[in-house]
Amino acid sequence: MPTYTAPVRDTRFVLENVIDLPAMAGKPGFEDFDADMIAPILEEAGRFFAEVVAPTNLPADRQGCVRNDDGSVTTPDGFKTLYAKVRETGWTTLSMPAEYGGQGLPGVLGFAAEEFFTSANMAFAMYFGLTSGAVEAIELRGSEEQRALYIPKMVSGEWTGTMNLTEPHCGTDLGLLRTRAEPNGDGSYSVTGTKIFISSGEHDLTDNIVHLVLARTPDAPKGTKGISMFIVPKFIPDADGNPGERNSLSCGSIEEKMGIHANSTCVMNYDGATGWLIGEENKGLAAMFIMMNAARLWVGLQGFSQAENAYQNGAAYALDRRQGRALTGPKEPDENADMLVVHPDVRRLLMDARARTEGMRALGLWVALQGDIAKRAADESERQAADDMVQLLTPVVKAIGTDIGMRVAQDMQQVWGGHGYIAENGMEQFVRDARITQIYEGANGVQAMDLVGRKLPMHGGRAVQSFFAMVDKDVAKAAGNEKVAALATALEKAAGDLKAASMWLMQNAPADPNNAGSAAYHYMEILGLVSMGWMWLRSAVAAASALDDGEDEAGFMEAKILTARHFAESHLPEAGALRRKLQAGAKTIMAMPAEAFARTG
Amino acid sequence: MPTYTAPVRDTRFVLENVIDLPAMAGKPGFEDFDADMIAPILEEAGRFFAEVVAPTNLPADRQGCVRNDDGSVTTPDGFKTLYAKVRETGWTTLSMPAEYGGQGLPGVLGFAAEEFFTSANMAFAMYFGLTSGAVEAIELRGSEEQRALYIPKMVSGEWTGTMNLTEPHCGTDLGLLRTRAEPNGDGSYSVTGTKIFISSGEHDLTDNIVHLVLARTPDAPKGTKGISMFIVPKFIPDADGNPGERNSLSCGSIEEKMGIHANSTCVMNYDGATGWLIGEENKGLAAMFIMMNAARLWVGLQGFSQAENAYQNGAAYALDRRQGRALTGPKEPDENADMLVVHPDVRRLLMDARARTEGMRALGLWVALQGDIAKRAADESERQAADDMVQLLTPVVKAIGTDIGMRVAQDMQQVWGGHGYIAENGMEQFVRDARITQIYEGANGVQAMDLVGRKLPMHGGRAVQSFFAMVDKDVAKAAGNEKVAALATALEKAAGDLKAASMWLMQNAPADPNNAGSAAYHYMEILGLVSMGWMWLRSAVAAASALDDGEDEAGFMEAKILTARHFAESHLPEAGALRRKLQAGAKTIMAMPAEAFARTG
Repeated sequence: MPTYTAPVRDTRFVLENVIDLPAMAGKPGFEDFDADMIAPILEEAGRFFAEVVAPTNLPADRQGCVRNDDGSVTTPDGFKTLYAKVRETGWTTLSMPAEYGGQGLPGVLGFAAEEFFTSANMAFAMYFGLTSGAVEAIELRGSEEQRALYIPKMVSGEWTGTMNLTEPHCGTDLGLLRTRAEPNGDGSYSVTGTKIFISSGEHDLTDNIVHLVLARTPDAPKGTKGISMFIVPKFIPDADGNPGERNSLSCGSIEEKMGIHANSTCVMNYDGATGWLIGEENKGLAAMFIMMNAARLWVGLQGFSQAENAYQNGAAYALDRRQGRALTGPKEPDENADMLVVHPDVRRLLMDARARTEGMRALGLWVALQGDIAKRAADESERQAADDMVQLLTPVVKAIGTDIGMRVAQDMQQVWGGHGYIAENGMEQFVRDARITQIYEGANGVQAMDLVGRKLPMHGGRAVQSFFAMVDKDVAKAAGNEKVAALATALEKAAGDLKAASMWLMQNAPADPNNAGSAAYHYMEILGLVSMGWMWLRSAVAAASALDDGEDEAGFMEAKILTARHFAESHLPEAGALRRKLQAGAKTIMAMPAEAFARTG
Repeated sequence: MPTYTAPVRDTRFVLENVIDLPAMAGKPGFEDFDADMIAPILEEAGRFFAEVVAPTNLPADRQGCVRNDDGSVTTPDGFKTLYAKVRETGWTTLSMPAEYGGQGLPGVLGFAAEEFFTSANMAFAMYFGLTSGAVEAIELRGSEEQRALYIPKMVSGEWTGTMNLTEPHCGTDLGLLRTRAEPNGDGSYSVTGTKIFISSGEHDLTDNIVHLVLARTPDAPKGTKGISMFIVPKFIPDADGNPGERNSLSCGSIEEKMGIHANSTCVMNYDGATGWLIGEENKGLAAMFIMMNAARLWVGLQGFSQAENAYQNGAAYALDRRQGRALTGPKEPDENADMLVVHPDVRRLLMDARARTEGMRALGLWVALQGDIAKRAADESERQAADDMVQLLTPVVKAIGTDIGMRVAQDMQQVWGGHGYIAENGMEQFVRDARITQIYEGANGVQAMDLVGRKLPMHGGRAVQSFFAMVDKDVAKAAGNEKVAALATALEKAAGDLKAASMWLMQNAPADPNNAGSAAYHYMEILGLVSMGWMWLRSAVAAASALDDGEDEAGFMEAKILTARHFAESHLPEAGALRRKLQAGAKTIMAMPAEAFARTG
């Protein structure tokens, strides 16, 4: 069975040395935060998730969830107790609003703890994670009464929440959705329709489940402009706010899926269920999109959280399994074989995994901090600049973070050889679980279109211009620093490819929008390389400075610099190839007649 | 449920237009082959595997194999009948030796039919595929008596065969194996030990199973030089060659694994089982390696066979599912949405899938033909030249073919969005099944070491030099051909990267063998791009020539040329990035202290 240790040292390094969270203490919006909190919070959270939650990951996946004949759902053994324990610790409310019972700390700290939780058991963490999204929707768009009625119970974990968007015939294109909501005349609505792929849709962990459901009112305009959001509780709260009458909704079945077996992914049937409008009629999709950035960052985190756990177990195997001899001669002649870690090709996979996982962690935490600044800073221009970065880089964290999750999980399974294919060793679970993160919350191709179609042109390209300015500044600063100069040069080259790609888009997308479509994924991948490369440059500079100050512990800083160098040597060169692919344009792929794609024999 | 159509048109195009199999008819070793056979064989085989075998793929995976308390194994419902049907058709004996009941046709035809079989149901096809490997071992190294006793029954499918190499503590490094074989004094041996990951190790499809087992005799030297190969039948043949006494071997358990659930992957316990030496004592590993090329080509085929089936279902979904609108405005305004295929990013995935799958099919078939020539040609130098190509490109077909299988299966699952993650739609099965092909029969990293460490330096680099000469010649010939000139230029550039990488290896590997190790995978990937690019050039030239002759049917040749162009625009540019990674050398990855890979918190 795999083992997991929370990467507290690395997360602290990012927060303290790379993105300088301590400097935020006392600033507007960070009044309750103190730099001394970082270490104990991370250490305690890390210990809890590693010791209490992580051991449940494999057995819960093997057992899965069961829908009983009466429509109830039984979660894996031990989940009820575990759920109660997580609630007690409060680790999931770190960044929840204080007025609703949360701890009101910066979102970046909650994000850091959430990684440990998600590495430990992603399918289980989703019961809480979806609730956070629903809380945010009610907080942003709900009435005062709705906020008072639902949020405290959801923050405390007494109730969970879900998001009901997808229907059998529509996922990405929500304009097609058909679920109806007819006014009952008393302010409530009668909601009828079928929703699919509803994570945590039904379970036995709490007394109530709060479903947020997208539906159409009777005279709603067609398409996305006629979608409203409703709150549809499993049990309708009574006058005291306790679960009362059972609502007319049920889990029709649990999807049998590739992974995250311990999360109940339900088909939900709403059969005239009583619901209440959240926010304005026909503005449901806009409300949903407000939450989208947070949800997408969270899915990106799911990606690299699986990469981290897979990496740890890949590395552990490489340091334990003996097979073959070092190419330069036996490293341990007294043993019958050397450890896998002597083989350069195994090291290549391990270094790739570190470069990707640590780079994406740094990027994710930096973007999470920008989210805090965007919400909390006193200065409007500071808030705006931070929000620009959140907008621009959220698709990158979501899509590249999850591509990385899948890639690292596969590479680490590969280190295990045949044993990686066997279920009881747990390496194949990381692959199956990571796979969904590339698909849900906007498939990665949709993220690329969001980036190129919406985020890039936003405010005349303001966000990407600011991004270039920050990268260029750090590259220029690093020029004289011997330990990082090669990385700075490689980053400068990759940033040049990104600028050329941006220019190409400006020149070629207006004439043929398909050029934006064919370029989108390549563009997002280059931005992923450059933004991670930038974080690696900042990490290497911070590590070099710590070394100069004599602060090295157990080679941590040396390993950082080596991994940064590996990113420069083995990852950044891809930017040039991606730029060339992008510049080929849409002509060839659009020239193919649609019917020519079908194999007819 | 997915549907499958054998890609007969494409396979015919490769055999007839690209590798010119018809020209071999009547040549030495091809006396029984006639060009007119190609179409009917492919069509009939394609129809059978698509109609009879393919529908079993998903249900058999869902059901899996069961080990009963008495150690017997029950395969999925219907497999017994299906097994009998496949035997009747004779499709699996196309290229088996005529003297043992096979049809004696060229291996390249058997390879083509095998792709259809493996696309249709890979886990089931393995019961036959492993048998072919065992037949080859007995044919090459067995005594006349052993050949007569076992081969006809194995060729006919009356008995199946297995290969027993791996033990719990050793897979890649077979020098560590511990299974013992003690002489009984009557010419037989008593074999004792535990073997794991034994595909088709125990099942209910045949009266007997012939296990080939690697073991050590009492005074055998340590390491790989003390390994012998034994034939250990489940039932010892009696005087008439019929299954007699039950041997002391049993299936201890079935591995629960990520995929290929319909193939019984067994832990096999040999408890003083009676076996007979095949070939010379202590020469077992060498005997095993003789079969290795064929087995590895077969696994490469498994890879692209899964890609083909996944592609077909990805394309079918893109031509059926409606979601969103074309970027240039509604394609079908009367429908409520356009088909997925209007979206450039979906087309990118489909074109990538075609470029990879068809390119690897062409390469696989070309290498299979070289295998025939190497075995059958009259002229020694012709045999040698063909064998050089088989040696050089087998690791590429195995590793890049399976990397492609996994990549295409994932990309096509992505086209299906959330529905691709649901088991009943079958797209996730392609991913789980394809995954093992990158691992077994020599993990892909081992293939890379085989290429760079053994195949490249073989005969002073003779093979790769001949390869370059052939590519350069075709590039030069294509220079004046307008339809393929851009592809020829892109291929020339990628071949230049491969030459530079070869040069770098010659200059840097001798001083530090770890430079060969760190470069190996990148080198193999570049060779993969160039060899597939070469096949695409030959395909595009053939298609252009067919178009000039007015032979186009249903746009097939136009689609070929477009897909070739896509390979040039979107795949070949990667060669440059890979070369740069390779040239970074081993320094950074080897500088990392081994213990620094462990996460300690």
